[in-house]
Amino acid sequence: MSHPYQDYEPKWVEEKFSKASYRSIFKWGDPDFIKKPKESLYKLLKETFGLDDSFFKEYKEDLGFDEVKYDIPTNLSQNQIAAFVDILGSDYVRTDDYARLSVAYGKTMYDILRLRNKIIENIPDAVLYPSSKAEIEKIVAYCVKEKIPLYVYGGGSSVTRGVECVKGGVSLDMRLRFNKVISFNEVDQTITVQAGMSGPRLEEILNNAQTELGAKRAYTCGHFPQSFEYSSVGGWVVTRGAGQNSTYYGCISDIVVAQEYATPIGTIRTDRYPRKATGPDIGQIMMGSEGAFGVLTHVTLKVFRHMPETVKRFSFMFRDWETAQAAAREIMQSEAGHPSVFRLSDPEETQIMLRLYGVDETPLRHLFSMRGFKEGEMCLFLGFTNGEKGFSKNCAKVAKHTARKFGGMSLTGYVTKSWEKGRFNDPYLRDTIQDFGIVTDTMECTVNWSNMAQVHKDVRAYCKSRPNTICMTHMSHVYPQGANLYFIFIAKMSDPAEYKAYHAGILDAIQKAGASMSHHHGIGKMFAPWLEGFLGRNEYDIIRTLKHHFDPDNIMNPGGTLGLDLEEKDKKFLRSDIK
Amino acid sequence: MSHPYQDYEPKWVEEKFSKASYRSIFKWGDPDFIKKPKESLYKLLKETFGLDDSFFKEYKEDLGFDEVKYDIPTNLSQNQIAAFVDILGSDYVRTDDYARLSVAYGKTMYDILRLRNKIIENIPDAVLYPSSKAEIEKIVAYCVKEKIPLYVYGGGSSVTRGVECVKGGVSLDMRLRFNKVISFNEVDQTITVQAGMSGPRLEEILNNAQTELGAKRAYTCGHFPQSFEYSSVGGWVVTRGAGQNSTYYGCISDIVVAQEYATPIGTIRTDRYPRKATGPDIGQIMMGSEGAFGVLTHVTLKVFRHMPETVKRFSFMFRDWETAQAAAREIMQSEAGHPSVFRLSDPEETQIMLRLYGVDETPLRHLFSMRGFKEGEMCLFLGFTNGEKGFSKNCAKVAKHTARKFGGMSLTGYVTKSWEKGRFNDPYLRDTIQDFGIVTDTMECTVNWSNMAQVHKDVRAYCKSRPNTICMTHMSHVYPQGANLYFIFIAKMSDPAEYKAYHAGILDAIQKAGASMSHHHGIGKMFAPWLEGFLGRNEYDIIRTLKHHFDPDNIMNPGGTLGLDLEEKDKKFLRSDIK
Repeated sequence: MSHPYQDYEPKWVEEKFSKASYRSIFKWGDPDFIKKPKESLYKLLKETFGLDDSFFKEYKEDLGFDEVKYDIPTNLSQNQIAAFVDILGSDYVRTDDYARLSVAYGKTMYDILRLRNKIIENIPDAVLYPSSKAEIEKIVAYCVKEKIPLYVYGGGSSVTRGVECVKGGVSLDMRLRFNKVISFNEVDQTITVQAGMSGPRLEEILNNAQTELGAKRAYTCGHFPQSFEYSSVGGWVVTRGAGQNSTYYGCISDIVVAQEYATPIGTIRTDRYPRKATGPDIGQIMMGSEGAFGVLTHVTLKVFRHMPETVKRFSFMFRDWETAQAAAREIMQSEAGHPSVFRLSDPEETQIMLRLYGVDETPLRHLFSMRGFKEGEMCLFLGFTNGEKGFSKNCAKVAKHTARKFGGMSLTGYVTKSWEKGRFNDPYLRDTIQDFGIVTDTMECTVNWSNMAQVHKDVRAYCKSRPNTICMTHMSHVYPQGANLYFIFIAKMSDPAEYKAYHAGILDAIQKAGASMSHHHGIGKMFAPWLEGFLGRNEYDIIRTLKHHFDPDNIMNPGGTLGLDLEEKDKKFLRSDIK
Repeated sequence: MSHPYQDYEPKWVEEKFSKASYRSIFKWGDPDFIKKPKESLYKLLKETFGLDDSFFKEYKEDLGFDEVKYDIPTNLSQNQIAAFVDILGSDYVRTDDYARLSVAYGKTMYDILRLRNKIIENIPDAVLYPSSKAEIEKIVAYCVKEKIPLYVYGGGSSVTRGVECVKGGVSLDMRLRFNKVISFNEVDQTITVQAGMSGPRLEEILNNAQTELGAKRAYTCGHFPQSFEYSSVGGWVVTRGAGQNSTYYGCISDIVVAQEYATPIGTIRTDRYPRKATGPDIGQIMMGSEGAFGVLTHVTLKVFRHMPETVKRFSFMFRDWETAQAAAREIMQSEAGHPSVFRLSDPEETQIMLRLYGVDETPLRHLFSMRGFKEGEMCLFLGFTNGEKGFSKNCAKVAKHTARKFGGMSLTGYVTKSWEKGRFNDPYLRDTIQDFGIVTDTMECTVNWSNMAQVHKDVRAYCKSRPNTICMTHMSHVYPQGANLYFIFIAKMSDPAEYKAYHAGILDAIQKAGASMSHHHGIGKMFAPWLEGFLGRNEYDIIRTLKHHFDPDNIMNPGGTLGLDLEEKDKKFLRSDIK
């Protein structure tokens, strides 16, 4: 799959590893899939960090091949364990070291650095594997009675420490058995699934709806986060996620029709009407509650007609970031329908993408220089449209026409196709590179158009204030009123504490610049100290009141989720300008 | 404007009336505008109600020409009045009979029948006319201190008794002075206005944005409820309204960007980001609170590019309701973009519309019979598209193509244009006809496609169970997952109590059939007894908790709003099937 290097190639880790190893927990995705950097990326890393081949002769991190083993007793009593066994059966209540650690962390580099360094903390006392809503309702009721902290683990791709079991107790691992279709309504174009349903399985069922569901045609879920392969429907909903095609299909908050929760005060079922004027929207109160109000059990989602044949790809190069932003805004405000994937890279990301996709070795580079486009200034825009044939065609036509109007140079659909190939497997590179001590992670925020230049400048200024750090930025999930700005940083870093401090600095910069704290990653426990300052005290008090309403004993995802049980001294208040 | 009658024409009331009269309060809209029924409608009324011309020689209701006068003292102390005068100045605190009654009622027939019968109840002790957010914040703080009930009157078009001052106190009349533009952001395509801004004034400002706001182009608000001329932005938001073009532009809940409220516990400002993953959505908690949590002060709305030249009209006749529904659903699920106005009439409404628009006197009627389309079976579909030229064109093309595929017969854009002429002034007919004892009112609900036939059948069955009653039904505000069903009933009725009982029966039928209580009219005090049963007890408890959080002393729109201070015995629980 990958081209051989012309010069020295480091020995990227490709060994098989035990299913009981640390590596099996922190490695991204499919245990058998390895993604190695292209030589161009390897060269870039050496240049950026001032390294030569000799640095890459030796691994800089623990490779995590050891089997998971630690000495932390479970705090549940025998009676409590027996009660869970009563509900689920003995096969589905585990207290062994591996099971407990496997659901404690998500996929932020802070999690991975802790696992690389064998820092075992915040693990549950037991892991439960429910298969039905009724079982989950019984578990919640029992945990309330016994005041046992309760956590939920879906796909495990949280980058906010959302799943971390700070107070011990039990974690419900939804992947194994709580992953079935409950019902499908082709007339309404909706599907109801258990919250542990995985993204790829849902899409597979919908793409094959004729055989899988007895439907008249094929459908798509329309929701493809970068973590798609290891994400769950429940995780999408409780964190308010967004997929890479959200500009057309909407964020999960647009796609969800109805939700059902098992909470300490009983079942909450939201209505299934597309719009209504019946008071505050209960669905929008539950969505984003991140397990702090109750456990999401069933979710009803819209489904969309699967029409891959109508996709129209495009990609353009713009002279500079300012022009590119203006073009992007014009496309989104033109009322010609919204492209599905809409990705505009800033100069630094553009430079790196051209290398990675090999464009800098093609005749295109001559065309760029003929047009006076300069490396370090020019910006790559790529995307594609979805929907009914005529809609998709017109939408792409307007996008292309607008791009040309702003001096954009068409690169055809080639670059978009290259991006599509890597769209779900780029995260695999993280592990390969990190074995040599180089971390890769992301931060993101929502920005209104009128503040876009400022946020981009300020956040990048912080990111780059750390010497030898790559910071690629792009705009995606785009709206007539603004867009998501997404920052990917690559740095030589091994200490979890150093990582955490850098991460906090980026969040500080995002908020000071007037952007939202998060567009789709959520808050979890890692972003929580900033939430009250971001929303405002009066506004945050609403969430505190809701928490007390649902969970007065604080047993649902306790230990900092959404900042609900943080001490005042641990909170950050950075914004007074903008609410 | 209206054609002369060939036969006897009743003496429709056209007299001028005093600005201090009851009629000036209950009459719809512009005091100088009268809409008289066409002869075809007059004939229909006679047929339906089994009447002849002699019945129409005499008015059956009080015409309301008397000046408003009653003997209900104000319960505020001199000190309290003085405190309000301190805040607003003496010109803007009124306690006279007219001012108090003018803000007590909305525009449901129940309100109008009470005014016709001079039933004066639930009036405020004083009417306040604020001009700024700061003044409103002071008024709220003072009312909290003194425990004075506080109501808000926007455009006055509530059909849910939303504005009724059940507990006396003060009502804030927003129309007079709290109606200005606060800011306009053309880069983000947003406008911030005071909550009392009227619909037509907002649209006028946006249509003339170049001169009014120094903008580069013209905009539209995209929100045109039937009550447009007498509705306010604040009313749209707190009730979760929808305009006739919502299928394209979205309901107000889709158009609102940010809101600011003066509540008993302080200011609440929601964020202005198009999407975010920062916990439960505060904006969606405040929207729909109907004055029960606080007073909406400032609203930031999206604005859309004004492109009237791209409108594409269409209208079709379908063989029957079943076929028509299937075509409507196909259009909405085809992913070709959504038409803006999308209105599908059932057989009874179709029959009446053909008469009113004079289609039954054209050659079209022969074409219908040639196609085997029967009166009382066939269904009229009309609408138009908005948006960028190519988008609008393709959207209309797909709608037309689909309509033809389902056997629809094109009536060109003629019928749509007739509908457009009457779209905002049909309510004027209510008064003209009601002088003769015939009431006209509407009810509406959201329905999922899979339940559409059932809801239509069951609700109509109740409506028609009353002898001699017209019930026109149409679908509008349409979605891939369902649509709004809108019922217009016309009946000979003069007693407010009889009206109320009939209204309650329709609500019972809507809920038993599994539809939402309301798509865009809201809940107010009139629909309130059903809300807890509709949402479910656990779900409703969330709203109760929020109310207690914002307004522990129950001074904000008290007396039944959203059912928050109703006694258990006054609540209705009809649904166990569907949440």
